[in-house]
Parts: sequence; C-alpha cells; structure tokens
Amino acid sequence: MSESLTQLDTPCLILDQARLDRNLARMRQQLATWPQVVFRPHMKTAKCVEVARRALPAGGPIIVSTLHEAEYFFDHGFDDILYGVGLAIDKLPRIARLAARSARLTVILDNVVTAQALGDFVRESCLSIRALIEIDTDGHRSGVTPEAEALLAIGQVLQAAGILHGVLTHAGESYNARSEPELHAFAELERSGAVRAAERLREAGLSAPVVSVGSTPTALFAQDLAGVTEVRAGVFMFQDLVMAGVGVCTPDDLALSVLTTVIGHQAEKGWVITDAGWMALSRDRGTERQPVDQGYGLVCDIGGRRIGELIVISANQEHGVIADRLGAPISPDDFPVGTRLRILPNHACATGAQHASYVVLEDGVVIDRWARERGW
Amino acid sequence: MSESLTQLDTPCLILDQARLDRNLARMRQQLATWPQVVFRPHMKTAKCVEVARRALPAGGPIIVSTLHEAEYFFDHGFDDILYGVGLAIDKLPRIARLAARSARLTVILDNVVTAQALGDFVRESCLSIRALIEIDTDGHRSGVTPEAEALLAIGQVLQAAGILHGVLTHAGESYNARSEPELHAFAELERSGAVRAAERLREAGLSAPVVSVGSTPTALFAQDLAGVTEVRAGVFMFQDLVMAGVGVCTPDDLALSVLTTVIGHQAEKGWVITDAGWMALSRDRGTERQPVDQGYGLVCDIGGRRIGELIVISANQEHGVIADRLGAPISPDDFPVGTRLRILPNHACATGAQHASYVVLEDGVVIDRWARERGW
Repeated sequence: MSESLTQLDTPCLILDQARLDRNLARMRQQLATWPQVVFRPHMKTAKCVEVARRALPAGGPIIVSTLHEAEYFFDHGFDDILYGVGLAIDKLPRIARLAARSARLTVILDNVVTAQALGDFVRESCLSIRALIEIDTDGHRSGVTPEAEALLAIGQVLQAAGILHGVLTHAGESYNARSEPELHAFAELERSGAVRAAERLREAGLSAPVVSVGSTPTALFAQDLAGVTEVRAGVFMFQDLVMAGVGVCTPDDLALSVLTTVIGHQAEKGWVITDAGWMALSRDRGTERQPVDQGYGLVCDIGGRRIGELIVISANQEHGVIADRLGAPISPDDFPVGTRLRILPNHACATGAQHASYVVLEDGVVIDRWARERGW
Repeated sequence: MSESLTQLDTPCLILDQARLDRNLARMRQQLATWPQVVFRPHMKTAKCVEVARRALPAGGPIIVSTLHEAEYFFDHGFDDILYGVGLAIDKLPRIARLAARSARLTVILDNVVTAQALGDFVRESCLSIRALIEIDTDGHRSGVTPEAEALLAIGQVLQAAGILHGVLTHAGESYNARSEPELHAFAELERSGAVRAAERLREAGLSAPVVSVGSTPTALFAQDLAGVTEVRAGVFMFQDLVMAGVGVCTPDDLALSVLTTVIGHQAEKGWVITDAGWMALSRDRGTERQPVDQGYGLVCDIGGRRIGELIVISANQEHGVIADRLGAPISPDDFPVGTRLRILPNHACATGAQHASYVVLEDGVVIDRWARERGW
C-alpha cells in the first residue's frame, strides 16, 4: 500500500527521484568529453549517503563542507574525501583521527601560517594528509590569486612537508552570470586561473599534479578543461531557482520541493496562507537580485505543475504567504483550506538544511525516506 | 576541569545563561503589574526543555509553533499547550493522539470551514480540545479583523461544538516599530483589537473567557492590559539584533552568539574569512531594512565584547566574510588565522534553528550542553 502526498505530515521536503537522476545524467554527459577529468561531487547540498551512491561509484571521490560530513561519508564507505573549506588549525586533531582510520583526506588552505602548522602536524603525526592551495580566480571569497607571491611561499612550505598536491579554485562569482556566453567565460576564467597557478608552482620546481575546479554553472558550461584534472559541483543534483535564474536549468529540473497545506486566506489581499514558512523553506532570498525575484519560492500544485505566477511573497517562521507575483487576485475557492501545494526553493542547499530527511517520490508515489545529516 | 571557548569545535551556538536569566527576569518584572494576566512563553525560539524550565513553572503554560514541539514539551511535563499556527484539518489525528494522553490543548483558527471540521471531530472523538479565534489586529498575516462578520460565524460554530474559548492575536507588525511611542501604540492596537473581538463575541451571547495577545515588542512595552487574560512572547528570552533595531533591547542583552574561527584573509579588501557561514548564522537578513543593517551579524571577541564596527558582510554556506561596516581597513595581524570570534545574530529563532544544541556558558566557562528540537 503506497503512501501518497496527500497522506504526509506537512511541511516536508520532497525529492523527485527521476529529476535527480536526470540531473546526474546531464552532468555525466557533460563531463564525458573529458575522460581524463575526475568528477568529485560536492555533498554539502545533499548531505545524504543515498544521494551520494546514485551520484558516483562507491568509495568516492567526494568533496564535503564540514568535518561532520567527512566522518559521516567515511563511515558509509566513501574514503577519498576533500574537505573544501580553508583549514582551521584547531581542526587538525579531528582530521588526524579520520586519517588514522585510513581515509584519503585532502585539505585546502591559502596562507603560510596554516601551511606551516599543517606541515609540522603531518611530520609529527606521520599521517598522510594531502594539501591543495586555494586559488582565487574571480575575487569571490578565499584563496591567493594565480600571480600572488604567496602562492610559491605556501607551495614551498607544503612541498617541504611532502604534502603539496596541487591547486583548487571555485568560481563562486559564476552565480552572477546571466547568459551562456557569461557562463562560458566564468568557466574559462576558473580553468585558466587554476592552470596558471599550477604552472607557476611547477615552474618553481614544485609538485602540482591536481588542478581542481568547479561550481555548478562552470561545470555544466565548460567548453575546455585543458590542464584540469578534477571538476567539482553540488547543487546540480537538485538544481534550484537561483540556478534557473542564472540560466543553468529550468524550474522543471528542480528535484526538491516543500509540500505544504493551505491553512487560511486573506481574500481581500489576494493571500493564501500555508504551513510552510521560512523554517521549511529557509530564509534564503537568492533570487532577490536576479531579474526574476521568486520571493521565497515558486508555487506548484501537488503534482508539481506551476500555478500561474504564484510565489511565496513572504514567510514567517511557520507561515508562508502565497500571492500572484503581479498582484492579480486569487480566489480562496481555488485553494480551499486543506489544499496541498508544493514550493520550489530558491536555494537547494539552504532549504535542504531545514529538514531532517527527504521524502523520495517516484511517479507521484512515496517510495522511500532518506535521512539527511546536519551540524559540524 | 572546565572547558573553555578555545576548546570547542567551531562553529557552534553559545548561550549566555546570565543574559538568558536577565531577559527572563525583565519580562517577569514587566508583567508583574498585571497579576491577573497569565504569561505563556513561546517555545518556538528556544525549542529546548531546559530553557522552558528556566522560563516558567513546571507544567506550562506554553505556546508552540509545531506539533513536534507540542509532543516534545508534553513528553517533558508541559501539559498546557497552545498550538499557535492556524489549524490544518489534516493535523487533527495527531492532535487527537496528544489530547488522548491528557494534554490540555488549545488550537487557533480563522475560518468557518476549519471550525466546522474541528467541531465535528471533537464531537465524534469526545476529546477535549479548546479553540481560540485568531484575530488580525494589524494586517500582518492571518486572522479575522475584530469587526469582521466571519468572527461571529466562526464563534457560533465553535460554541455549538462546546469548544469556543476566546480570541488570540499577534502584533507581528510591531517589528516595524522604531520608537517607544510606536511600541506603546502597537501594544495598544493589539490589546484593543483583541478585547473588541472578545466583546463582540460576548455581545452575541458567545463565550470568550480567553483574550490572548503577544509579541516580544508589545509584551515588553504594553502600558495597559485591561481585558487581556494572557500574554505570549518568545524571542525576548534570547533577544537579537532585529529586536535591538526595534529598540526593544541593546546588543548587550543578546544571549545567543555563534563561536567561529578565522581561517584566512583578503588583506587588500579588508576581509577576515571565518568558518561561520550562513549554515551557522542562518540566511536571516532581518536587519536589512532597519536603520542599521547588521549584515549577517555583529562581531565580538571571544569574551563577547563588540569589536569596533565589524560585521559579517556576506556569508556562503560555511564561510563568513567579516569587514568593517564603513569599509575601514582591517589588518590581518589583528585577527591571525585561528583567532576565535563570536557573532551576534540578526534573528534568534533562525540562527538557533541551524544548530542541534546550545553550549551553555557561565562566567566564560562551558557549564552544560542543551539539546534543541527541530522538525514538524
């Protein structure tokens, strides 16, 4: 006796398995052009071993955003793990415990102080931990620029400790692309910067076998990966409205939605009130600065079909307010109390993080529940 | 051997017990003027039984925002529970299971359809569930206005089922107050609207013993509670930067902070990069439209003292970017990698929700860890 969406407690997080698989297949097809390039999916979006197992062969390689994720995925058979946030020295003992269990760990860093501390730690502990130097190719966040003096200084410290493994960059600014040519340009900016940094290390006699690049927009729109050895991406598995706004996908590709129930109306304002507020949708307003602001999410019927131009215009903790984007009136009779709706989220990482599990859907029927990890 | 803040894994959520107790004492003192008024703290902010036990006598009364909270607090001895989100009919079986365990449950609603369904359900199940009619006193969200025709229609349906208990309102718009006179005015708007709605019910021969009002701003700034029987508030326990922006408290009253570690710099941009991104801070930008935009939070040293005008200017999933509010340069030497900082949050409910537990601090020393609930 299969469970349907009308029987679930709301709000809850729905994962459309067919869309997930389609998104995974699209990335595989995109990267098939470069068989020499390793694909390392970012598990910070899904935080779920069942999703990881659909995304890649058992054992990894994966990238994670927290040590808790590293430990969780290692416990579930993924042993090639890149911890993709600049290393804090205080985290070394915990990383060492994982390395001592034979995890193949790679960390990233962008400064000499951390490189020195890591080098000393590895020498003293005799553990095998590999390091990539984080490269800043677009001014987004962390990293040294490909031409920075510090690049060679960090490289020398890591090489002396026998742990220099290469370079890594993330074109976070690619989220600001708005056209295919811009997406191509960000991908090339990421590639050329990372390759240039690796070449500078090699020219200085340092070792840089790994050149790791990636973000969902650049991975899906790269036209050239010459010199790149590894591509990373995470959001592509689920996609989201921010990615649709960037032009990376369409709303029909979104694998996540939040199931909600209508609890009331403010008829004269054209509002439908639901039980999915920001606790279920997240506070993410990532589409706010895009050409189309999707509010707190795009409204679909229980079957996942968009309903006109309805969006969640505001959200309190456990209340969502649905209205027409352009203020067209909504009749309460069209959405009586008890009506179930599905909300497509702005940001898959943020909305996912509000939930303890996925309700997995196939052909409109609940086929499974997959737990999500959280915390650090 | 007591644990200090330098030994904790970061990021993590710190709860300053002295500030919590001070905030609780302030509310008790404010409401002591009206001994006939019941105080019903909202547990949607803390979601933690240890906090609830400090906030009020054992057994309740409390208000909650999800049925999961209702079940959790009932399991921990709180049996007078108001479920403060408009009832969805589908949730009745779950509410009935709790009522069957002798929980004293109150629900709220604002439409005849739900009132009818609840009335029928109570008649058939013979369970005791009380209902309040949600009143809209400020156009914020749900509820019928005090003068609405629907008020009496709903009241008649509930009265016929023997479950009409009174009215409830929440002045959510009080968050837009910016001065003490405005706070006083919102409190009076809430009081007078709720009392008027109750009087209309009584004039129509209906029963309305309970007149429940509340929000942190209005509860703390009410000057008159004539006709009110119950006050509710939640955020006041922890306070936050949004409340400071409203003028309800100062940043020194904030009981929550997120402990973080410096992981790098972008010296030429004046950026300090930390390991507390939006996953630890939440995506809440509640101060964005206030006179002082606090970014993703206000930066303090490990002892909780504010550092100049430093704020978290942007946040990725596991990266926070700290800079001076006005763009003044920051020397990396002032915040070397490994430095620990504490971030005061915009919104206590949203930041709390990102964490599985509180690290409880007394005199700068970790004295306990309290688990938080999540989910629905």
